Amino acid sequence: MTEHNEHASAEDSLIARYFRPLATDPGAFGLIDDAAILKASGEDIVVTTDAIVEGVHFLPDDPPDTIARKALRVNLSDLAAKGATPAGFVLTLALRAADDAWLKPFAHGLGEDAGLFGCPLLGGETVSTPGPLMISITAFGRVPVGKMVHRSGAKPGDRVVVTGTIGDAALGLDILTQGAVAAVIADNVAATAMLVDRYRVPQPRNALAKAVRDHAHAAMDVSDGLAGDLAKLCAASGVSAVIDIKSIPLSAAATVLLARGTIGIEAMVSGGDDYEILCAIPENRFDAFAQQAGLAGVAVTSIGTVIAGTAAPRFLDVQGRQIELPRLSYSHF
Amino acid sequence: MTEHNEHASAEDSLIARYFRPLATDPGAFGLIDDAAILKASGEDIVVTTDAIVEGVHFLPDDPPDTIARKALRVNLSDLAAKGATPAGFVLTLALRAADDAWLKPFAHGLGEDAGLFGCPLLGGETVSTPGPLMISITAFGRVPVGKMVHRSGAKPGDRVVVTGTIGDAALGLDILTQGAVAAVIADNVAATAMLVDRYRVPQPRNALAKAVRDHAHAAMDVSDGLAGDLAKLCAASGVSAVIDIKSIPLSAAATVLLARGTIGIEAMVSGGDDYEILCAIPENRFDAFAQQAGLAGVAVTSIGTVIAGTAAPRFLDVQGRQIELPRLSYSHF
Repeated sequence: MTEHNEHASAEDSLIARYFRPLATDPGAFGLIDDAAILKASGEDIVVTTDAIVEGVHFLPDDPPDTIARKALRVNLSDLAAKGATPAGFVLTLALRAADDAWLKPFAHGLGEDAGLFGCPLLGGETVSTPGPLMISITAFGRVPVGKMVHRSGAKPGDRVVVTGTIGDAALGLDILTQGAVAAVIADNVAATAMLVDRYRVPQPRNALAKAVRDHAHAAMDVSDGLAGDLAKLCAASGVSAVIDIKSIPLSAAATVLLARGTIGIEAMVSGGDDYEILCAIPENRFDAFAQQAGLAGVAVTSIGTVIAGTAAPRFLDVQGRQIELPRLSYSHF
Repeated sequence: MTEHNEHASAEDSLIARYFRPLATDPGAFGLIDDAAILKASGEDIVVTTDAIVEGVHFLPDDPPDTIARKALRVNLSDLAAKGATPAGFVLTLALRAADDAWLKPFAHGLGEDAGLFGCPLLGGETVSTPGPLMISITAFGRVPVGKMVHRSGAKPGDRVVVTGTIGDAALGLDILTQGAVAAVIADNVAATAMLVDRYRVPQPRNALAKAVRDHAHAAMDVSDGLAGDLAKLCAASGVSAVIDIKSIPLSAAATVLLARGTIGIEAMVSGGDDYEILCAIPENRFDAFAQQAGLAGVAVTSIGTVIAGTAAPRFLDVQGRQIELPRLSYSHF
């Protein structure tokens, strides 16, 4: 505590108080420098960047703790889908004001997740904005040289596989915004909490990174909706796909809501915020992949097949009829 | 051009149209993937992140071309001060709308600077915001292992050295916001243009990176004002400093404005946006440093001396009197 402290800017104090404890990596230099060091280890460095904006990717009254976790986890999800092991991240926090009551739980949630996923804070800055809160994170991972898993690479005959369940986050958002789901499910506290949690706190599948690296021809995370993201993976790979709608993994709550007709399957496969991994696994590797996934504690489900062609992926119901998807996925513009 | 294109989101089209041509590095994968690869080369990777916000770091009617350049250059300036060679960057662009008339010159300016400084676009995303524009960049550089130059490390007896001239950007901002300078200098078109340009388009000193690495005990870039940033460097190094105000390098325009009394030296040394390098050079290395700087085409000026102690750095006038600095530097909060 030198007398310099009285000259430190409010921004420096804010960083020192809330974020320095998170900078556990030696390369972060305790956040007192202008830059961090990411040690080269002979592996490739995977770089991904994802921002979340108040009112767009999270709601103004979401708890700061979950906002922080979501900001980091959407990036961790990208690393997982690329087969990379988390190595660290940098943070840009655009705030209207330095509000302790908001920053304290935000930093706490961020620090817990950084520890949980082995992804330390390497650097960052806070800027003031008169507009909505925005949290921009650039995250780093490591893969053996040349082993990053791409969007491209899916081949006809590959199985289309997803982790976890699809559509829950879209239902959670519907509940939080007082949509049709909210009224129907209001009496089921546990289901409501689960769906809201799926929207606010994604579960990135980093435990699956090695299995994806070992077996997948192509992979990406589902952030903007399964249908749209599958179309992107197919386009990058120069292939098409046929999906068996009945096999898309749904939570119990989603299954009930679908059966009641509260929502349609179209909304589930075009809603965003799933943060599950979508990948193309060669038929003869699927058993090994599923076994590795089981050991990692991640549910994986084969939902269809990659086929030749450049048509948009088709989603078929039990009668083999193609369902129409009015909106493939979320678009910002 | 496959039929997938009709399903591509507006965001994807926007990225393809404007930013894919900038993704010249093989590790960017043409921006079609979810992540980029930064090749490990046996050197340390230096990571820095800096965001600029409309109304805070640039003005709403600044040309998009210069906004793009400033966003990248403030990050390049950090790399230069750390002794690092640029390796690439990722971009997060928060926009109110996808406006071609804005995006085209923005991408053009960004691409030109990426080429000029050898710092290719590796990845990025656009998000929509109802608030002010924000450009967040994370930039990467390389240094030989262990050779990043820190804020800490300045030692008593070192010379305090700055590049270029100080205070011009603050004057430029004053002109753009119709301050006192604007009226006084209105008839001098060349000086007006120079000062405005210094605010809008910083000149990062990347040509000096090797000299900084070879000779500086400590370095940082001057972004928030010379006085405040020197205080930070001294605090990180556990030292103090004495600055000879008369030796602070000023442009001809700034010298005239100072002589006329339009502005005080306090405003010059506490104004932000200089993006010059501030460093501590051992006395016996100064000549070699200055020579290397000369070859690199960067003006360097010794403005004072590092001294023992933890007092705030003192700025002395020609009579040896300490000047009072009411505001050390810009603070966001």
